[in-house]
Amino acid sequence: MRPALGLDLGGTKIAAGLLVGGRVLGYRERPTPREGGEAVAGALAALAREVIAGREVAAVGVGTPGPLDFDRGVVRFAPNIPGLENFPLKARLEAALGLPVVVENDANAAALAEHYLGAARGAEGSLYLTVSTGIGGGVIVNGRVLRGAFGQGGEVGHVVVDPEGPLCGCGNRGCLEALASGRALERDAAYVFGRKVSVPELFVSEDPRAQALVSGSARWVGLLLASLQRVLDPEVIVLGGGVALGGGARYLNAVRRAYRAAMRNWHPAPVRRARLGRRTGVAGAALAALLEVGGVPDGAGLTLGKEDPG
Amino acid sequence: MRPALGLDLGGTKIAAGLLVGGRVLGYRERPTPREGGEAVAGALAALAREVIAGREVAAVGVGTPGPLDFDRGVVRFAPNIPGLENFPLKARLEAALGLPVVVENDANAAALAEHYLGAARGAEGSLYLTVSTGIGGGVIVNGRVLRGAFGQGGEVGHVVVDPEGPLCGCGNRGCLEALASGRALERDAAYVFGRKVSVPELFVSEDPRAQALVSGSARWVGLLLASLQRVLDPEVIVLGGGVALGGGARYLNAVRRAYRAAMRNWHPAPVRRARLGRRTGVAGAALAALLEVGGVPDGAGLTLGKEDPG
Repeated sequence: MRPALGLDLGGTKIAAGLLVGGRVLGYRERPTPREGGEAVAGALAALAREVIAGREVAAVGVGTPGPLDFDRGVVRFAPNIPGLENFPLKARLEAALGLPVVVENDANAAALAEHYLGAARGAEGSLYLTVSTGIGGGVIVNGRVLRGAFGQGGEVGHVVVDPEGPLCGCGNRGCLEALASGRALERDAAYVFGRKVSVPELFVSEDPRAQALVSGSARWVGLLLASLQRVLDPEVIVLGGGVALGGGARYLNAVRRAYRAAMRNWHPAPVRRARLGRRTGVAGAALAALLEVGGVPDGAGLTLGKEDPG
Repeated sequence: MRPALGLDLGGTKIAAGLLVGGRVLGYRERPTPREGGEAVAGALAALAREVIAGREVAAVGVGTPGPLDFDRGVVRFAPNIPGLENFPLKARLEAALGLPVVVENDANAAALAEHYLGAARGAEGSLYLTVSTGIGGGVIVNGRVLRGAFGQGGEVGHVVVDPEGPLCGCGNRGCLEALASGRALERDAAYVFGRKVSVPELFVSEDPRAQALVSGSARWVGLLLASLQRVLDPEVIVLGGGVALGGGARYLNAVRRAYRAAMRNWHPAPVRRARLGRRTGVAGAALAALLEVGGVPDGAGLTLGKEDPG
C-alpha cells in the first residue's frame, strides 16, 4: 500500500497525517479558518505540504462534515464552518498540491478507518455508528463505502425509530438523532432538571433520572442496530462518537442488551467499541483516497503493521 | 448472456423457465409436492429437464422462501413446505442435472429480476419491497444482492417502525410486517368488523374503515422506505407483492405520499410498481445463477430484447 495523506476538516480544527502501512505518521492539527472556503482550502493545503514534506504520496483524502457531491468533490455545505456552500474543495486542493484528491463524508471516512484498521478489521461488511452531538454513520459493503445514488447512504441518524417521537432537525418526527444524540440528551436533561446539564455530567451523575436518560439513548441505539442488522446484515458493528465512548462500558453494554433483545430470533453481530481514537478521521480520509486510486486490496483488508514498499 | 434456467419453489406451486436474452421462455408450473425434500428436489429436476429439453444452459437458479445457507445451497427451512429443514437442495439438483446450481432467497431473486429486467433497469442500486401475506425485500448494490454476513440482508419486513406496535412473528414489537402486511391487515379488519374480511375485500370496500386500514398500511410502508433511503440510498425503489399491487394506484400513491412527506428535506428516489408479474421468480432465480457463474455484466445492466449468441 502506497502512502496517502489524510486531511480531516472539522468545525473547530483541521488535522493531517500520512497513512503509511496502516499507521498515521506526522499527525498535526490547526484551528479551522472562519474566513470562508478559500481560507479553509489554503490552510488545508499548507498543512498538507507540511506533513508530506517532500515524500512520495499516492493521493490525498479529505473528510468533511455534511453533504457533498462526491464525484465532483464539491462540499454542499458544512455545518459550523462558514463559507463552504457549494465549494469545489477537490479542485482547489488538486490545483494547490498537484495530487489526486478525494473528498469524503467524515462519518464514511471513519467507517472506512474502523473497517480496515480498527474494530472491524477482517470483515467484509461493517456498520459504523457515531453517537455524538448528532448521530452519523457509514456502511461498508465488500470493503467499499455504500454511498448511494444521492450521497445519502449511511445517514443512519435519520432512520425513524419512533413516529410519535420528538421533531428532528431534518423535519421528521422520531429520527434516532432526535431521540438518542447528545443534543437530544441535553434537551431532555434541561426539561427534567430545569437547568442545563451536559452529557458528561449525566454520565457521572448518580441521580436515577440521569441514568434513565442515558440508558434511554442506549436502548434506542440498540433497537436501531437490530433493525439495520436485518437490512444490511453487517459482520461487525462499530460504535464511536463522544456519547457512545464517553458513556464507557455502561453505555456500550446497555446498547448491547437492547440490541441482543431485539435480535433474539435472529443472528446477531458483535457490537464493538471504535478503536482508532483521535486519528480516525485522518486515517479514514487517506483510505478513501487510496480506494479511489486503486491502492487498497479488494475486500481483503489491509496487511497492517508492515509497510508495503511497492 | 448465456441462457440460464430459473426455478421458483413456492408454497403451492413450483415453476420453471429459461431466461434467454432477457426473456423467460418455456415457462411452466406444477403443484409443490408435500412429501418432503427429496420429492421437491425430484419434481424440480423433472420440470427443469422438461424446460431445458436438451438446450445448452449455463447454470440453474432456484428461488426458495425462508432462510438458507447460500454458500452451501442448503435450505434451512421453507415456511409452508414440509420436509425442507436443512435440505441440501443445491447438491441434489447438481447431481440430478449435471449443471451448476445456485439457491437464492425468493425476495432477493425478485429484487434481481426487477433490477436487471424490470422497473429498476439501468440503476446501479435498487431496493425491492414485496408487501404480501408477509413483507420481504431485496437490496441490490452495484448490481449484486446485499446478502450480508449471516444471510439476513434485505429482511426489510423486520425493521421496527413502531416500538409500541403489535407483536411480530419474529418476537419483536412493531416490525413493518406486524403493521402493514396482508396478515396484519386481516388481523386488524377482523377486529374492526368483528368478522373475517380478506385483503381484496378491503380494497374494494367503500367503508371508510376499510380504506383507513389500507391507507394505514401504505403509510407505514412509505415511512419505512424513507428511513431506508437514508441508509441504502437506492436509485430506484420497486414495490411488488399481492397487497401492494392488488391495491392498485390508490395504494401505490398512498405509499408515495407518505414516502415523499418523510423525504421533504432529502433527495427522494422514484417509487415504482414492479413490472415482471408471474415470471419474476423464475427470471430472478436465473439471474442469480448467471451472476454466480459470471454471466451478467458488472453493474451495466442487461441488453434486453436481443439474445447474445456468445
